[in-house]
Amino acid sequence: MIHLKFTGKLLSALALAATLLSPAMAADKVYKLKLAESWPPNFPIFGGATKNMAAMAEKMSNGRLKITIDAKNKHKAAFGIFDMVKSGQYDMGHSASYYWKGKDPNTLYFTTMPFGMIAPEQYAWFYHGGGMELMKKVYDKHGLLSFPGGNTGNQMGGWFRKEIKSVDDLKGLKMRIPGFAGEVLAKVGAKPTNIPAGELYTALERNTIDALEWVGPSLDLRMGFHKIAPYYYTGWHEPATELQFLVNKRKFDKLPPDLQEILITAMKTAAYDMYIQSYHESAENWAKMKTEYPNIKVKTFPKEVMDALRKANEALLAERAAADPLAKEVIESQKNYLAKVRKWTDISDRAYLDSLSD
Amino acid sequence: MIHLKFTGKLLSALALAATLLSPAMAADKVYKLKLAESWPPNFPIFGGATKNMAAMAEKMSNGRLKITIDAKNKHKAAFGIFDMVKSGQYDMGHSASYYWKGKDPNTLYFTTMPFGMIAPEQYAWFYHGGGMELMKKVYDKHGLLSFPGGNTGNQMGGWFRKEIKSVDDLKGLKMRIPGFAGEVLAKVGAKPTNIPAGELYTALERNTIDALEWVGPSLDLRMGFHKIAPYYYTGWHEPATELQFLVNKRKFDKLPPDLQEILITAMKTAAYDMYIQSYHESAENWAKMKTEYPNIKVKTFPKEVMDALRKANEALLAERAAADPLAKEVIESQKNYLAKVRKWTDISDRAYLDSLSD
Repeated sequence: MIHLKFTGKLLSALALAATLLSPAMAADKVYKLKLAESWPPNFPIFGGATKNMAAMAEKMSNGRLKITIDAKNKHKAAFGIFDMVKSGQYDMGHSASYYWKGKDPNTLYFTTMPFGMIAPEQYAWFYHGGGMELMKKVYDKHGLLSFPGGNTGNQMGGWFRKEIKSVDDLKGLKMRIPGFAGEVLAKVGAKPTNIPAGELYTALERNTIDALEWVGPSLDLRMGFHKIAPYYYTGWHEPATELQFLVNKRKFDKLPPDLQEILITAMKTAAYDMYIQSYHESAENWAKMKTEYPNIKVKTFPKEVMDALRKANEALLAERAAADPLAKEVIESQKNYLAKVRKWTDISDRAYLDSLSD
Repeated sequence: MIHLKFTGKLLSALALAATLLSPAMAADKVYKLKLAESWPPNFPIFGGATKNMAAMAEKMSNGRLKITIDAKNKHKAAFGIFDMVKSGQYDMGHSASYYWKGKDPNTLYFTTMPFGMIAPEQYAWFYHGGGMELMKKVYDKHGLLSFPGGNTGNQMGGWFRKEIKSVDDLKGLKMRIPGFAGEVLAKVGAKPTNIPAGELYTALERNTIDALEWVGPSLDLRMGFHKIAPYYYTGWHEPATELQFLVNKRKFDKLPPDLQEILITAMKTAAYDMYIQSYHESAENWAKMKTEYPNIKVKTFPKEVMDALRKANEALLAERAAADPLAKEVIESQKNYLAKVRKWTDISDRAYLDSLSD
């Protein structure tokens, strides 16, 4: 250890040195942010996205931006993320925008929509088609910033114990399917319900429900539904489920500009990364599932059923658009963008994939 | 200005202060990197990716990492990027890996391959299927680091003056199509050629060539080919063209760890961003093209032609695999990953898109 005899002159010199170097010293201040996520601890893929984001932010900032993550077991409020970030109890959240439709109906549109865009189409809408601006309009009044938080890719339409051959087969069908897609199914006569994840397998096994949707092979494999419900329907209700990073705006505004840019880039990259990881895990787990359970039957709803669901979806959207000018603006923006971008998808990836099939 | 009378004691104190604060002072050092790109100045989308990357790096580093960009008009060597970065004349490059197959045949595999993966599949291979590790194996011996540099999305099969109804229609067909896809076409009897961009329109108009491929609507619109060649074929030869960021390894190793992480994240994000921007521009420009030129006929090669091209592609890959163990490793890695991931694409996005078509 070095002993210094502090004289007046020495102290002045040190003070001056400190002043001259103060920008560098300020740049060393550590900013700590607390994030609450909707998922249990170590939840695959979703939980990986928050860890990936926090690690990038910490490394890029040389330790000046530290984000600690509380999973559901800690904060006990999977669906309280919106309120906890709004009040400032947490600085950030990781969840899904459509969970908040009870608090603000216009949060519904920023996750995925039945018969809506696939992932690259939806990212194009967010970043080039006005999506980010519309999301800002919805979240501004809550003092929150909302960003894409990672895409699951196209979700499967769910596991069914019996084949669906007509709209009649949907009448009275008890299915675990939450949110807006549940409303669509109800409109064609099904009985949508929500059941906690831990009870789903037993509910399906004991015929409490006839069908359920979860995510897709990436997360379905560990749930075991394929052992008791052999019909695996292709998706229509969540073609590109995008999770969400929420940030308390007051807290964000207090960060220096370089850390703001680091945080924004870390969130954006973690979101893209999760889309690609989901794609990979879906491919891996689908290969495993099919090998272990060759009896799984992949089905697409017949055209009659798809048309009925689509009509129900459009009727529900028309009701929402009529009730709220901002809802109308978002619904029309998505509809117009989808009409344009799908024409490109159809002559690019879709034409290519179709041309290679037997 | 402040005048200081430096005494021995004052100088010691200042030296000590400087020592104590040295990490902060080192953190203020500005690192300048020079990047050469293969594109003309202000080239749309491709040139946007390098600007986006440099801007993110500069903002996130609070100005400590400055990347200056030289376009083709400055360095005069669009296809000299590999050599200029390898020699250290430039610290970084933005180009495409398959341009270097003459220098190292194994660089071919890291851009896109005929009948290969679409963009999300290929990103999944890069980041989770061993692609990055294999690319490192190829580039290590050149003292270069290579990273994804932005995806164009599925490229269109090109503009043809006449319809292609059989393999016979390809015999003797003069087509501008460079690289490996040109070799595939040659194997079925076509006459592939390369012609500078500025002369393409005239060559097509004067029947010097019968057909050409460029990129897709995102960049084709401004070229005007649709005015003289009405058949627009869907893609088979470049399903997910990924550009490349090159970094001189010695220069990279001299950066402090936080700036290394900032650079890597900025490149990764700029690559994803370019994929999404390409998707958007393709949608926009395709809508414009179709409105202004309703006579454009979108066609897919008949099954007979696709089968012949596929067979030629497989024969060429088998030759390459037999000639080089590392080539064999990469080709097999891509083939195995594609077989697995395509099964997922087929029951997710493809099944969804097909189910919505009339």
